Amino acid sequence: MRFQNTVAFGFPQIKNKAAPFLFQYQASRYFSSQLQSEQKRRSSFGIAFDIDGVLLRGKDPIGGSPQALRRLYGDSGNLNVPFLFLTNGGGIPESRRANELSELLGVKIVPSQVLQGHSSFKSLLKRYENQLIVATGKGEPAVVMSEYGFKKAVSLEEYASCFENIDPLAPYKMWTTKLGLDRSSPPLNTVPRYDVSSETVKAVFVISDPVDWGRDIQVLCDVLRCGGLPGQDNGHQPQPPLYFAADDLEYQAAFPSNRLGTGAFRIALESVFNRIHYNPLEYVSFGKPNPFVFKNAEAMLKQLQPSYHSDYFKEPGDSGSQSFKTLYMIGDNPSVDVKGAQQAGHPWFSILTRTGVFRGKHNHAEFPADLVVDTVEEAVDYILGRECIS
Amino acid sequence: MRFQNTVAFGFPQIKNKAAPFLFQYQASRYFSSQLQSEQKRRSSFGIAFDIDGVLLRGKDPIGGSPQALRRLYGDSGNLNVPFLFLTNGGGIPESRRANELSELLGVKIVPSQVLQGHSSFKSLLKRYENQLIVATGKGEPAVVMSEYGFKKAVSLEEYASCFENIDPLAPYKMWTTKLGLDRSSPPLNTVPRYDVSSETVKAVFVISDPVDWGRDIQVLCDVLRCGGLPGQDNGHQPQPPLYFAADDLEYQAAFPSNRLGTGAFRIALESVFNRIHYNPLEYVSFGKPNPFVFKNAEAMLKQLQPSYHSDYFKEPGDSGSQSFKTLYMIGDNPSVDVKGAQQAGHPWFSILTRTGVFRGKHNHAEFPADLVVDTVEEAVDYILGRECIS
Repeated sequence: MRFQNTVAFGFPQIKNKAAPFLFQYQASRYFSSQLQSEQKRRSSFGIAFDIDGVLLRGKDPIGGSPQALRRLYGDSGNLNVPFLFLTNGGGIPESRRANELSELLGVKIVPSQVLQGHSSFKSLLKRYENQLIVATGKGEPAVVMSEYGFKKAVSLEEYASCFENIDPLAPYKMWTTKLGLDRSSPPLNTVPRYDVSSETVKAVFVISDPVDWGRDIQVLCDVLRCGGLPGQDNGHQPQPPLYFAADDLEYQAAFPSNRLGTGAFRIALESVFNRIHYNPLEYVSFGKPNPFVFKNAEAMLKQLQPSYHSDYFKEPGDSGSQSFKTLYMIGDNPSVDVKGAQQAGHPWFSILTRTGVFRGKHNHAEFPADLVVDTVEEAVDYILGRECIS
Repeated sequence: MRFQNTVAFGFPQIKNKAAPFLFQYQASRYFSSQLQSEQKRRSSFGIAFDIDGVLLRGKDPIGGSPQALRRLYGDSGNLNVPFLFLTNGGGIPESRRANELSELLGVKIVPSQVLQGHSSFKSLLKRYENQLIVATGKGEPAVVMSEYGFKKAVSLEEYASCFENIDPLAPYKMWTTKLGLDRSSPPLNTVPRYDVSSETVKAVFVISDPVDWGRDIQVLCDVLRCGGLPGQDNGHQPQPPLYFAADDLEYQAAFPSNRLGTGAFRIALESVFNRIHYNPLEYVSFGKPNPFVFKNAEAMLKQLQPSYHSDYFKEPGDSGSQSFKTLYMIGDNPSVDVKGAQQAGHPWFSILTRTGVFRGKHNHAEFPADLVVDTVEEAVDYILGRECIS
């Protein structure tokens, strides 16, 4: 029996860039017995996927990722196994990243399934909602923060443009670090212009890999050394807080060998800052392997349970918040994904793939995963077998 | 009596941007007795001027620099006191820098009076003349090296463009790190395209402040870790030599507070490289305070002696290479200019101005200069008084 208002297309041919298929999850009182039992069954396990080096290299699916993900859906197109993307990358709002991933991977992803490095910054909203904050990183840092609710978020690029000659190399850069021309980008949220010559910056957020390291290191040194206002020199000013969305030293992108990540930028900034300032740089890094991130992921996976929002099927006394027996973290970077799962502890189970940063024959010496596989498809095979799901 | 073929204009009004006046030094057998005695008199002293923070801030003359320099010329417009510019900056050939300085400072500067950070790279010509070398830094690094005689010099920007996806942030940079549009730049020397996929880079030269730190650090890590060929992984490759034109941590530009210099870039590169490679980064830094640079300057000042090339006035037995009694280094950066003069020893005498990096009331604690003055004009006053020149 077809569901009312449910649209489902057949599964496309298995190929690298799978055509998207759409599904809609819609509750209706007329169900087949198969679906009824599917919906009543809450999954005792969930999966967190790293993206770069596991599911994608650049924009290309790898390791059989489209078909691997499709196996997490039922025949009707409903989500059988709660899963999400747990990445240290970022730069655009989760809603846009979800659309992008849907297109690249051929399955419908919703924004709540996308946990990026900077997603955790939402937890700082109360503290900085109405404070002047500067955000930097590839993509649209001010838009990302604004959409989280920060009312006075300014990109570092825009902030720097208010200080004449702050970057002596600016005349040599015929550029703007906005999104490339070939990507359709919605217009920036217009932020009110602040009197940056008198209003101090209360915090700095590095939301993704900075594009212009030289300018960013210079301006951040200015802001952080002078209590949030370049040029201000009224004795020793406390350093405004500095937050990094991630601290990955390297990651797997399209180039054959690892590329430098946000962690490398942090090392560069820190080494320069500490040479020119009387106090060492203070900062907080979010993202994996921070246990906070895994706790967050666990909470989100609970909400993604197929039966989470359906009161109709809750059993008497069921609070709807039953813990998972196992949560699988599938990643390619031992010092980020495996270390994070280990530090988070139960119920996390780490799986390392060989399609990204890690390429070892056996296991990683310093951060050995619970399981090492060649591809994400193998990982999903293993999980479903272990959990007795056909 | 006027000289044949000598053109001299009157001295312009003293103002900040002095209008240039031209002079031509021309030997002729019909001389006034005043000039004859001027030419016979070899100067027993010479002067080396730092540029940024002493003579100029950005493009603006400071500290009375035009009038200070004019005092080094005789009434006839001839050079009385040998002087040159000893700067760690660079990016364009000395001939172009000389023209630029002539225009800004209102005195005729010849290319041999301009010693830039990368001028010392000429000493490496024999070793790398026909080797593939990569050069980076603001301005035109490949042109600078080519004009020195290096036959296979490629800019890092061009080199990187041969490797797809080597810079994952390239799509975010709608730029090209060439000279700003408002500067007339002659066409780049066309360099033959090399098969960079198989030919290893034999050395890397950082000729001035890099513009795109992120890309440069990534590509330099690739080149230096893989024996001169990104992606090459045949065991442990020796690191190609890396040369820096200077190592200034900070310098005075147009912005009120010090800006990060090539030394800051070196610190950033080194800190990242040493985190991802099994051997620490090896490099050689030229420029002040390297004693080699001061020896070079002394030799050039000898050649700039008013009577150096004039055999007519040599006294019998005069080899034409009489040493200086005093060489004055006028700078604004204690750890670069004063330290350099100290390390070079006799006959160097250091003078610190307060118009640049140094702003102290008294002397610098770690590198105390022989004399501290407010401006370069005061410095020249002092020198001429000390040397009994009116």
